[in-house]
Amino acid sequence: MYTYEYLYQFTKEVFKKMRCNEKDASDISKVFLAAELRGHASHGMLRLKDYYQLWKADRINTHPEIRIIHESPSTAVVDGDNAIGMVAACRSMEIAISKARQCGTGWVATKNSNHFGIAGYYAMMALEHDMTGITLTNANPLVAPTFSISRLLGTNPIAVAIPAGIEPPFVADFATTPIARGKLAVAEKKGEKTLEGFVQDKEGKTTTDPSILKEGGSMLTLGGDYEHGSHKGYCLSAVVDILSAVFSGANFGPFVPPSVAYLPVLKEKVGDGTGHFFGALRIDAFQPAEQFKSKMDLWIKTFRDAKSAPGKPPVQIPGDVERQKESQIRKTGINLIPAVIDDVKQIADELGVEFNGN
Amino acid sequence: MYTYEYLYQFTKEVFKKMRCNEKDASDISKVFLAAELRGHASHGMLRLKDYYQLWKADRINTHPEIRIIHESPSTAVVDGDNAIGMVAACRSMEIAISKARQCGTGWVATKNSNHFGIAGYYAMMALEHDMTGITLTNANPLVAPTFSISRLLGTNPIAVAIPAGIEPPFVADFATTPIARGKLAVAEKKGEKTLEGFVQDKEGKTTTDPSILKEGGSMLTLGGDYEHGSHKGYCLSAVVDILSAVFSGANFGPFVPPSVAYLPVLKEKVGDGTGHFFGALRIDAFQPAEQFKSKMDLWIKTFRDAKSAPGKPPVQIPGDVERQKESQIRKTGINLIPAVIDDVKQIADELGVEFNGN
Repeated sequence: MYTYEYLYQFTKEVFKKMRCNEKDASDISKVFLAAELRGHASHGMLRLKDYYQLWKADRINTHPEIRIIHESPSTAVVDGDNAIGMVAACRSMEIAISKARQCGTGWVATKNSNHFGIAGYYAMMALEHDMTGITLTNANPLVAPTFSISRLLGTNPIAVAIPAGIEPPFVADFATTPIARGKLAVAEKKGEKTLEGFVQDKEGKTTTDPSILKEGGSMLTLGGDYEHGSHKGYCLSAVVDILSAVFSGANFGPFVPPSVAYLPVLKEKVGDGTGHFFGALRIDAFQPAEQFKSKMDLWIKTFRDAKSAPGKPPVQIPGDVERQKESQIRKTGINLIPAVIDDVKQIADELGVEFNGN
Repeated sequence: MYTYEYLYQFTKEVFKKMRCNEKDASDISKVFLAAELRGHASHGMLRLKDYYQLWKADRINTHPEIRIIHESPSTAVVDGDNAIGMVAACRSMEIAISKARQCGTGWVATKNSNHFGIAGYYAMMALEHDMTGITLTNANPLVAPTFSISRLLGTNPIAVAIPAGIEPPFVADFATTPIARGKLAVAEKKGEKTLEGFVQDKEGKTTTDPSILKEGGSMLTLGGDYEHGSHKGYCLSAVVDILSAVFSGANFGPFVPPSVAYLPVLKEKVGDGTGHFFGALRIDAFQPAEQFKSKMDLWIKTFRDAKSAPGKPPVQIPGDVERQKESQIRKTGINLIPAVIDDVKQIADELGVEFNGN
């Protein structure tokens, strides 16, 4: 078990050794650790190796010059200069928040970025400014549109954070597929089958084999099959892709660059890097903040009071599960599995950073 | 079979008899007829009776004073003055477009409105201004959040229209449930069972009985069950509800007023009327318009070229199906089923408008 503070300081040192400046290293580490605290270990320390290897392969830029290349009073397009995704995303969301302060809302499309960790982190940056935050990103192509066997889309997540008053904020953060890619990987490692409705083989036949992605299979969009609305999941994922990549000038759909160094750089590109989209909406651009917050409290209370089906848990408000995890993990400490500890230790050794691997 | 022009003129006369002014009657009729042309007859002439009966019961205002009650450079909150939904929605989207012209983007939350027909119509209003359009609305509570048996949400649709160049625009317009309410009604009328995954009974047990909503059952959110991501559909539907109703000051969730006169006015309210949310994003607030459009053409071509699974139809671009329908229906004319013709004829008689019911 590790404390937040220990892993935060360690991760920051690692990224500083990779030539990140103090603020960038701090921002990256905060996003990594937020994933651990919120129970999304698939986006936490497990991924340190991916970024380290991309850096060693000279495929990400750890001292980027991030800049606005196009703007209007309420919008900007940001060139991430091939930064680590967390750095491009933090700067972009800061710009969205600053635009919202002036204009009521701010909207930033970012190109030339990379994998940015958990989408919810950036949406939640808006909360402390009494704003609603929205984050979208495209991702490595693993998902087929309805009727297709071509992997044209990523798990393209959507995050929305909305402030409340005495209640904690509403924080939705979800992939536009029935399950996250990480859960397939876990089932595969355990040698388990998945339920139907998550993946198909290279012929488009439904399968319960979680390793099928390695054999030309693909993930399905939210809804699963056409009869159950997979075309709606496809619409959603497509909207995320277009806002993230066509709006910004990044690579869309099948052209999104891989987020791991063991996959080769794609030969064909239609833009620059990975794309994200950020929104910030000032509460008081719509209503006096106190009035809005008390209405959100009432919304949350109404949904918390919903009647559960027999044998089912209470209805959750988006964000509840992650908050419960965080509260628990802050007490117990962060648990890293042995394989992750080994990887982290090796990185620490190579970079000359101390790490307590016991 | 009726021509577009005949039904448009007729519908306009009906709403003028209901004291709408020329522009309002025209806007309402255009939305009705757009639903017929796009193959969504469930939102077309079939619904004329609902609006007529609400008007007779003095539950909608056909000569509203629609006004902005709060604003910032890029946002507005609109009070629809209990207008017919189409009227409040057209005015609100016009305001969003005008804000976008000044600011890059425009965002309008509308309260005190009513059922507004097809969401896609308003999103598509942005296209002719070289803008992307977004429309959300809440709706009568029929849908239960994950784990629950309480009907707290509507089918809460999302519509997004994005301009392209030589390709037709991308137009997504979908409910955040596996199927639309209208399809359940059709199955019920035909005495057919539905597939599993659409509805549950009042105990939360899955059922294939499409009439279960009359016995305390509820619709499920996109994803169907928790294992297949129904909590993601719940998140989406909740975000639509909050943006439409908490942002505007309308009734949220279970308090959304009924859109038909045969259901009583709800005793409890937490805001004014039904709520909508509109967005307009100027293309050139992000990129030169021609550059953006040629990139959208490439996006569309990439997805059109996707390989279909054996035996499956070609991959569709959102909006394709509706365009094909429109092109066909413009040739053949609009077919009204006998029950709708009877209703329309009766309304015409009562209002003293001529209608060719043969």
